[in-house]
Amino acid sequence: MMLRNLALKGKIEVSEPSKTLRALNFSTQIKKVLNLDCISKPLKEAEYAVRGSIPARAEELFLQLKNPQHRFPFQQVVRCNIGNPQELRQKPLTFVRQVLALVECPYLMEEKNMAQTLKLFPKDAIKRAQSYFENGMVSSGSYTISQGMTFIRGHVAQFIERRDGFPSDPNKIFLTNGASQAVTFVLQLLISGLDVGIMIPTPQYPLYSATLTLLNGVSCPYYLDEDDDWSISINELRRSIQQARQGGTNVRALVVINPGNPVGNCISVARMEEIVDFCVAENLVLLADEVYQENTYNSALPFASFKRVKERMGGRHRDLELFSFHSTSKGFFGECGKRGGYVELSGIDPEVEKQLLKLASIGLCSSVAGQITTDLMVDPPAPGEESYELFVQEKQSIIDSLKRRARRLVEVFNSLEAVTCNPAQGALYTFPQVRLSKKAIAEAERRGMTPDAFYCLQLLENTGVSTVPGSGFGQKEGTFHFRCTFLPQEEEFDCFTELVQNFHKRFMEEYSDNS
Amino acid sequence: MMLRNLALKGKIEVSEPSKTLRALNFSTQIKKVLNLDCISKPLKEAEYAVRGSIPARAEELFLQLKNPQHRFPFQQVVRCNIGNPQELRQKPLTFVRQVLALVECPYLMEEKNMAQTLKLFPKDAIKRAQSYFENGMVSSGSYTISQGMTFIRGHVAQFIERRDGFPSDPNKIFLTNGASQAVTFVLQLLISGLDVGIMIPTPQYPLYSATLTLLNGVSCPYYLDEDDDWSISINELRRSIQQARQGGTNVRALVVINPGNPVGNCISVARMEEIVDFCVAENLVLLADEVYQENTYNSALPFASFKRVKERMGGRHRDLELFSFHSTSKGFFGECGKRGGYVELSGIDPEVEKQLLKLASIGLCSSVAGQITTDLMVDPPAPGEESYELFVQEKQSIIDSLKRRARRLVEVFNSLEAVTCNPAQGALYTFPQVRLSKKAIAEAERRGMTPDAFYCLQLLENTGVSTVPGSGFGQKEGTFHFRCTFLPQEEEFDCFTELVQNFHKRFMEEYSDNS
Repeated sequence: MMLRNLALKGKIEVSEPSKTLRALNFSTQIKKVLNLDCISKPLKEAEYAVRGSIPARAEELFLQLKNPQHRFPFQQVVRCNIGNPQELRQKPLTFVRQVLALVECPYLMEEKNMAQTLKLFPKDAIKRAQSYFENGMVSSGSYTISQGMTFIRGHVAQFIERRDGFPSDPNKIFLTNGASQAVTFVLQLLISGLDVGIMIPTPQYPLYSATLTLLNGVSCPYYLDEDDDWSISINELRRSIQQARQGGTNVRALVVINPGNPVGNCISVARMEEIVDFCVAENLVLLADEVYQENTYNSALPFASFKRVKERMGGRHRDLELFSFHSTSKGFFGECGKRGGYVELSGIDPEVEKQLLKLASIGLCSSVAGQITTDLMVDPPAPGEESYELFVQEKQSIIDSLKRRARRLVEVFNSLEAVTCNPAQGALYTFPQVRLSKKAIAEAERRGMTPDAFYCLQLLENTGVSTVPGSGFGQKEGTFHFRCTFLPQEEEFDCFTELVQNFHKRFMEEYSDNS
Repeated sequence: MMLRNLALKGKIEVSEPSKTLRALNFSTQIKKVLNLDCISKPLKEAEYAVRGSIPARAEELFLQLKNPQHRFPFQQVVRCNIGNPQELRQKPLTFVRQVLALVECPYLMEEKNMAQTLKLFPKDAIKRAQSYFENGMVSSGSYTISQGMTFIRGHVAQFIERRDGFPSDPNKIFLTNGASQAVTFVLQLLISGLDVGIMIPTPQYPLYSATLTLLNGVSCPYYLDEDDDWSISINELRRSIQQARQGGTNVRALVVINPGNPVGNCISVARMEEIVDFCVAENLVLLADEVYQENTYNSALPFASFKRVKERMGGRHRDLELFSFHSTSKGFFGECGKRGGYVELSGIDPEVEKQLLKLASIGLCSSVAGQITTDLMVDPPAPGEESYELFVQEKQSIIDSLKRRARRLVEVFNSLEAVTCNPAQGALYTFPQVRLSKKAIAEAERRGMTPDAFYCLQLLENTGVSTVPGSGFGQKEGTFHFRCTFLPQEEEFDCFTELVQNFHKRFMEEYSDNS
């Protein structure tokens, strides 16, 4: 620094350059060529709180806890900031992993090894692993075609047909690195100028807002109704689009996350029909983020896909331009690390499809492990097959447990002073509201944080429980929330909820306006 | 269509709207909401020939060849358009696949199964698989932290230190979905406005040009010298940057691909030092694409990393801002489908690093299979370990064979009339020049194709050999090339080269200007 200052000083004194030149000397001698000033405004402004400062602090704590002399009042970091089931010890499905392992080591399926292999792997897993090679996959180490393996897309289409009762075309399916990549691709198709806007729920999963910011698009928020279990109201959609259009925004699409992230709402078929109506009337493309379709906990609100709803409505509703997303990361698979996912296109202009294919091809192809995991998700063991019973048992055990944990965590939050929490009808999250005291708000301001971030940071520092402040998802002005998954295993739930309850009590006492 | 025309007609006749309104009615009634006009100019203009029309036609042929009554004069599609070794039956390394399989199925390593497992897997593969869990990986199905697993980044840093003899910091390493994703991230950091340019080699791997187009950046080509084995000349770098800067472009970085894609050139250390000098003098960030670092075939030009070269040069050269890329897809691994890769940052502003971390976090994390494959690449079996001998034998066999095939294919091309081909000093590609006749050029024009695309299409239709026209990589005006990998297995090489030779002879006869 010393040296740099001297060099700079020298330059200026000797040559007395013009103001511009002086600025240039500054930039070439003190600053890096690539510095924060070079970074595009959209990138600088993009925010992604699910991996933001609180989870980053949690990772620091995780390392500090390894020191046996640590002085924290807790023993572990509980990562409730992200829907990462297996990180919190949800067991992977045995059949899925068996097939993946066999695909990696085809020698296990050679005749000379088969007797040994059969002692460790069931026949149907072997048969399934062999099917990939029989269908033309040379190796799990090859790039596939950019859209993803053809026969896997065929299985995805069959899955959609069984689920919805309407035709699905493998050529309209793109396999991607998780649903995230598919969403990014589709937003790249939609955003073509500074005035193009997309309606997104608020609170929303910040992949949407962050990617829109990066692409220079406009986020047009519509608010979910906290007083009505975070439902979507058509009036609110109308208000949102009117406001955006009056402001000169060219609103081109609507994003619906169902079941919802971060709030866990599920949408009734009647409301879905109204949403389809709204899109058709307003000339909007619909992006249906349905990655939590297997995570529903309210039997009165079972999952229905927007594809099925629009097809059943018939007429011009069938022409609705729809992108539907699904993923291997959620549901009862929870295979986040595989980066498997897909998007189905329905009613999309073939010329636009070609542009999507080009985008996919620049990254060559999605992870083969992700493609195979997707295949196993859409085509699981069938009744009568050797692995069927275990698969169903593992699946049901996860689903039942998630349902119990969802209910329990909501109850815990509702038992806390000044906290209210809607039931988690679906997905993997609760989104409680905390009414923070003036004192707590003032303290947050003093520390240069939003009040919800202050609460979450205190929660983390005192319990090891990592959550995401509501401000990372968007929330109504003056309200404070946080997102907390209910993914800790049931045997850890007592301890986990006790930590949260005790912390909250102390926090409310410490920051009581009456004290 | 009928109905739509009527509706449109009605609208116009009844209301006689203004020209603008009429255009609006057109667009809302005939066109899709999302149509080609909505697609951003950069996306429409981006091109990626490696997966372009010729490879797409190859996939059609692949399907048609399945029909036993096909009438093609060949039996298979030979995919020489892309560096995808395992698709052309390069065998994966046994140890790599064993570890990946064991990581998928931890039950294989439980005590009750160990005796059986040891009959199918070597001890060191088991130990290695266990090490991931011992190092804190809960499951291969978890999202990792966005930058990639910490201890794997530690191994990458150790690998770089062993390779270069200079320190490397795990915190400056980002694990990504192949090197492609890393390159995209870095270009996103660099491009902040319409006037920002990046110098790229020409011919170049079109990931760079396509991504720059998508990001609204400026590609500033510098030409490789075909007459000097596709070398990089400093004078040409100077010409390129001067021209770009005179045109108002803010040139911020230089891309060097070494060994080179698509031309297979290798750069001498002396020339690398000149390139580092040039970057320092011209205030450029250097992007070193070193994914082919294990693929060198000329002992006079062994691989050296730009990191090592700049560190050895010392002084202010060490401050050069450098991004170095590597991948599991090439070398002797060839594990393209795993999507493993990394970028090492050296001399980069910490504030810029934070922006990179944000970009990485929006996609959550890279493929875990890719991360583990990266780990195995940088930390292979050591001498004395059970798998060492087989690993070295498999590795050497692939490297030796690639070397022979590189030489052979170049010889074949040089034996053809009107074809010249520089030796492939590295990478996986030949890039022969074909001097096409006026007649061939005229026929291409008649068909609305570039002459090189016409040649490649004819080659494909007559032999099943899929290549990429030189125009997809950039080439000097009036010259015609194509890129062809030498990845067919040696036992197929006679047949493959005979097909190419016979085709070329017939093509030259058919399109001879003298006939």
